[in-house]
Amino acid sequence: MRIDVLTLFPEMCEAVFGTSILGKARDKGIARLQAVNFRDFSGNKHGSVDDTPYGGGGGMVLKPDPIFAAVEHVLGERHSAQAPLASEALAGVETALPVEPAESVANRANTDEVPAANAKPRIILMCPQGRPFDQRIAEELSKEQHLIFICGHYEGYDERIREHLVTDELSIGDYVLTGGELPALTVIDAVVRLQPGALGNETSAITDSFSTGLLEYPHYTRPPEFRGWKVPDMLLSGHHANIEAWRREQSLRRTLERRPDLLEQAELSEGDHKVLKRLKAEMEQ
Amino acid sequence: MRIDVLTLFPEMCEAVFGTSILGKARDKGIARLQAVNFRDFSGNKHGSVDDTPYGGGGGMVLKPDPIFAAVEHVLGERHSAQAPLASEALAGVETALPVEPAESVANRANTDEVPAANAKPRIILMCPQGRPFDQRIAEELSKEQHLIFICGHYEGYDERIREHLVTDELSIGDYVLTGGELPALTVIDAVVRLQPGALGNETSAITDSFSTGLLEYPHYTRPPEFRGWKVPDMLLSGHHANIEAWRREQSLRRTLERRPDLLEQAELSEGDHKVLKRLKAEMEQ
Repeated sequence: MRIDVLTLFPEMCEAVFGTSILGKARDKGIARLQAVNFRDFSGNKHGSVDDTPYGGGGGMVLKPDPIFAAVEHVLGERHSAQAPLASEALAGVETALPVEPAESVANRANTDEVPAANAKPRIILMCPQGRPFDQRIAEELSKEQHLIFICGHYEGYDERIREHLVTDELSIGDYVLTGGELPALTVIDAVVRLQPGALGNETSAITDSFSTGLLEYPHYTRPPEFRGWKVPDMLLSGHHANIEAWRREQSLRRTLERRPDLLEQAELSEGDHKVLKRLKAEMEQ
Repeated sequence: MRIDVLTLFPEMCEAVFGTSILGKARDKGIARLQAVNFRDFSGNKHGSVDDTPYGGGGGMVLKPDPIFAAVEHVLGERHSAQAPLASEALAGVETALPVEPAESVANRANTDEVPAANAKPRIILMCPQGRPFDQRIAEELSKEQHLIFICGHYEGYDERIREHLVTDELSIGDYVLTGGELPALTVIDAVVRLQPGALGNETSAITDSFSTGLLEYPHYTRPPEFRGWKVPDMLLSGHHANIEAWRREQSLRRTLERRPDLLEQAELSEGDHKVLKRLKAEMEQ
């Protein structure tokens, strides 16, 4: 898959792209990750990408021109030289998605990077007004060929970017940040780790709190006693069925105590419901 | 304020610390940001910080020793040479917070960095099981003197870290990531921008979607017409009271359409309720 991040801080994004799972995914060719400085598309000699808001008020607003131009540059890279530029496909079109001409798909057939026919890029604006990002959206995005992230930095976006360019608006949570970079990198991390081959066996699914819909049970490793605090005897018993039951109960207990809202969505067996009933009774005592 | 991040990827954290608002806050002395590689505290020549889980199952689990040692190193740095080491204060204590000896507070009085007397650090574990991070928690943490973040990477944590060392567990959202670094950096960004002087005037509060409890109204800047898409006439009218009313209605509309859950917590006037009633009626038609 290909991912482009439009940002004013490409070095910071590159530092994250080069680290850990993302770095390995890039090295293995699983994800092509690129940071694009949209200041290069300002169209003026000062490199200015923002301006004061119409109607007054504080702060600055990101202008539409540099963002549209940077997205079109990225889309243009994807097309073969003979194909029309994405800017031509986009100009005057009211929808957010550029229509991809059939010739360009045909021309691409012999290149190294062959998206599925008609694969349209998702153009994603990171903003507090966006759809709350969750694991389901991560899974949805992980099936795409090409993601383009737009990261503003302590400014608002000109509304025409939102209305006429982007396909998605995403928010990673209800807090105020100085820019879209950390949110975009967070989404990218969640998406790339789902690509086949991105995680080695040794790093499989241990932190997958949300894959079962429940919070994780407690983990313990060596030493068996640390500063007087011991590993629960159960885990040293070697009795696998009992250990599984203990872990499931711990997951249910932790979810019930901390995030009861998750229980509504979780896949629960009849046995789970019995355990929950007992745990609720204990908690009410 | 002082912030330490315990991580296996200090270079990545440093790249973020050096960028934009965080970089400026560090340069201005508003926040002292430090990444500490807890592999340096592995206590073995292989630098191993994780091990297989007791009770079986896939994945690796972060061992307690390196994390405790790294936190105590950071706490030790904070104390003057004459004061007992934090490790002594911690050893055998069942509570998560080290008791800070009165002498160390006195000895610190003449140093550059003087936390308030009895200021205890918050030791924060980033994990999916944590309390969901939001703007209220950002404001709470922004009043602290010292934050220590513990970032695991694609492993679980030994439960004794959770039970006996940390003061807080935080999650930035319901999605699975490969490590705690991006979540910790996200929390740090949200917290540091609230420090007095961190944001310049020009970058004030335009993205503060959550400070009013409503989503932001649309922003527009030059050019007044871009590819045929015009700025709304209202914003060019110069009539400030009408512009304010239009913006408020836009905020209410967007929140109603996208995040009706936020309306329950928002501060709404009688006029707002009238507008909402009208908008709801429109939407039902």
